[in-house]
Amino acid sequence: MSDREARIQRLGEVLGIHRPVLCAPMARIAGGRLAAAVSSAGGLGFLGAGYGDPGWLGEEMTHVPDSSAVGIGLITWHMAPTAVRDALVHQPKAIWLSFGDPAPHIPEIHEAGALAVCQVGRVAEAVAAADAGADVVVVQGSEAGGHGRAGRALFGLVPEVADAVDVPIVAAGGISEPRGLRAATELGAAGVALGTALYATDEALDVEEAKRHLVATDGDSTVQSRVYDHVRGPLWPDEYVGRSVATELTNTWAGREDSMAADLDGIRDRYVEDVAQANMERRVVWAGEGVGAIDAIVPASSVVEAFPAIPSIG
Amino acid sequence: MSDREARIQRLGEVLGIHRPVLCAPMARIAGGRLAAAVSSAGGLGFLGAGYGDPGWLGEEMTHVPDSSAVGIGLITWHMAPTAVRDALVHQPKAIWLSFGDPAPHIPEIHEAGALAVCQVGRVAEAVAAADAGADVVVVQGSEAGGHGRAGRALFGLVPEVADAVDVPIVAAGGISEPRGLRAATELGAAGVALGTALYATDEALDVEEAKRHLVATDGDSTVQSRVYDHVRGPLWPDEYVGRSVATELTNTWAGREDSMAADLDGIRDRYVEDVAQANMERRVVWAGEGVGAIDAIVPASSVVEAFPAIPSIG
Repeated sequence: MSDREARIQRLGEVLGIHRPVLCAPMARIAGGRLAAAVSSAGGLGFLGAGYGDPGWLGEEMTHVPDSSAVGIGLITWHMAPTAVRDALVHQPKAIWLSFGDPAPHIPEIHEAGALAVCQVGRVAEAVAAADAGADVVVVQGSEAGGHGRAGRALFGLVPEVADAVDVPIVAAGGISEPRGLRAATELGAAGVALGTALYATDEALDVEEAKRHLVATDGDSTVQSRVYDHVRGPLWPDEYVGRSVATELTNTWAGREDSMAADLDGIRDRYVEDVAQANMERRVVWAGEGVGAIDAIVPASSVVEAFPAIPSIG
Repeated sequence: MSDREARIQRLGEVLGIHRPVLCAPMARIAGGRLAAAVSSAGGLGFLGAGYGDPGWLGEEMTHVPDSSAVGIGLITWHMAPTAVRDALVHQPKAIWLSFGDPAPHIPEIHEAGALAVCQVGRVAEAVAAADAGADVVVVQGSEAGGHGRAGRALFGLVPEVADAVDVPIVAAGGISEPRGLRAATELGAAGVALGTALYATDEALDVEEAKRHLVATDGDSTVQSRVYDHVRGPLWPDEYVGRSVATELTNTWAGREDSMAADLDGIRDRYVEDVAQANMERRVVWAGEGVGAIDAIVPASSVVEAFPAIPSIG
């Protein structure tokens, strides 16, 4: 077995999965149906519980036949103080912590018998997460849709993290299909996380117009900005930006978000209408650079099953 | 032969090389000795002639034993009107055009019997270059050191370009060693371009302090900005930024380069001293995200020879 195959095998064993594919916990887009479909297809689905609203999570978990087959993702820097505990009540297989220091929460996750999946965007963060007991480190590059750290992409980041930590690495960002898995595993990863590619599926929680917009968008047409944080709140810490499809709003304000302050009430009032009318020229649709590879809205199973199964041992 | 092997083979045939490795034409850093060493090791070396100063190029070409074994790189948007002609006088194997529309120059290059290598940072640019007759398209991701387009990294960009054009693709950005070649060729590339990794070699044209600084820098410590364009001139078009090792200057001014105007004379006077004193806390050292993999200053041949040779046919 090559090193590459051994890495993939080990990820499969650690997570108990049959394909090296995770569903990124896209906040309020990855609900119970999507997470369950990804796990059912052999990967590992995560519900995107965002800041940890227990009502949303409880409702979405009713669509998950077996809670021990899915994970739950939380946004560490802004989650409710009880968010990890509220998530663990559902007895998920794993908790995925993104954006902030996971270390204070890992003991509680392990005590509940769940795995700790920690997302990072820098080598130093990966080392800290591994030292704190992370079972899997998700290395998110600047290619990724939604929030993330700007400035480091997977090509340099994955091998550097692979040389620095000994836990299985999952690569996230710009990957929509099996070529990305092969490349990521050559760089030292053991699997991949899919966000945008699973957003454009039947099971994702958003209006049809948003999914069709993903199909119509090419990879040159996404942009990182803080525009929608200003519009929707909260304002994330400085190191984070959000990658979305470019819109009238990002074309106008990206790079000078501070100038939005003078007219923010007006922009927000208009934005409520933009969302209600599913105005895709203005509404946020988070998307990574891999969006160019998406050409249809399909069941999540067909996205996951395009990736090769992990060979079973012996 | 797999598709991947066939792609690498074709690049070898098109460029007449034995390893799928190009030396990026780092302006005034990739001189004749570096270019010749890369070609001698089986790759394809390029001199970084920048805006096309014929005096610099003539001097550097005296260090190239066989001009038909190397290429010459130019910065399209700001090169001298006679730069392509001045470069072709040396009868190089190829001209590498970066940053700007290569189309007007390709016929002249071909008429001189040279190959046209066109660097792009967007899918649309790749399609335009291929349509204009480019022999090889270099896809530069935002991981790359020096100037480049911000916002698209290799993971999403390479497969999208590979699906859109039929010319051999070389991936550039964040790649320092063979893992990057394997990953890039899984995504649809046929080879790689190395910049930073060849900067940290005996043959590169810069002071020893700069090369040692590359060895000491990790991949988390580079930043894209326009700071050094303001300090050194010229101001590049809006779509381009430059990735360098982070310094006191980028820490102070990145993201608010326009504010430099008020004190620009003072900053420039100080910068002349910074360069004279090889003050690496302030002087620009262009570097890509792959800088973390560099751990010694070595001969260029040892960087290139770490990459596998292209299997010879039959």
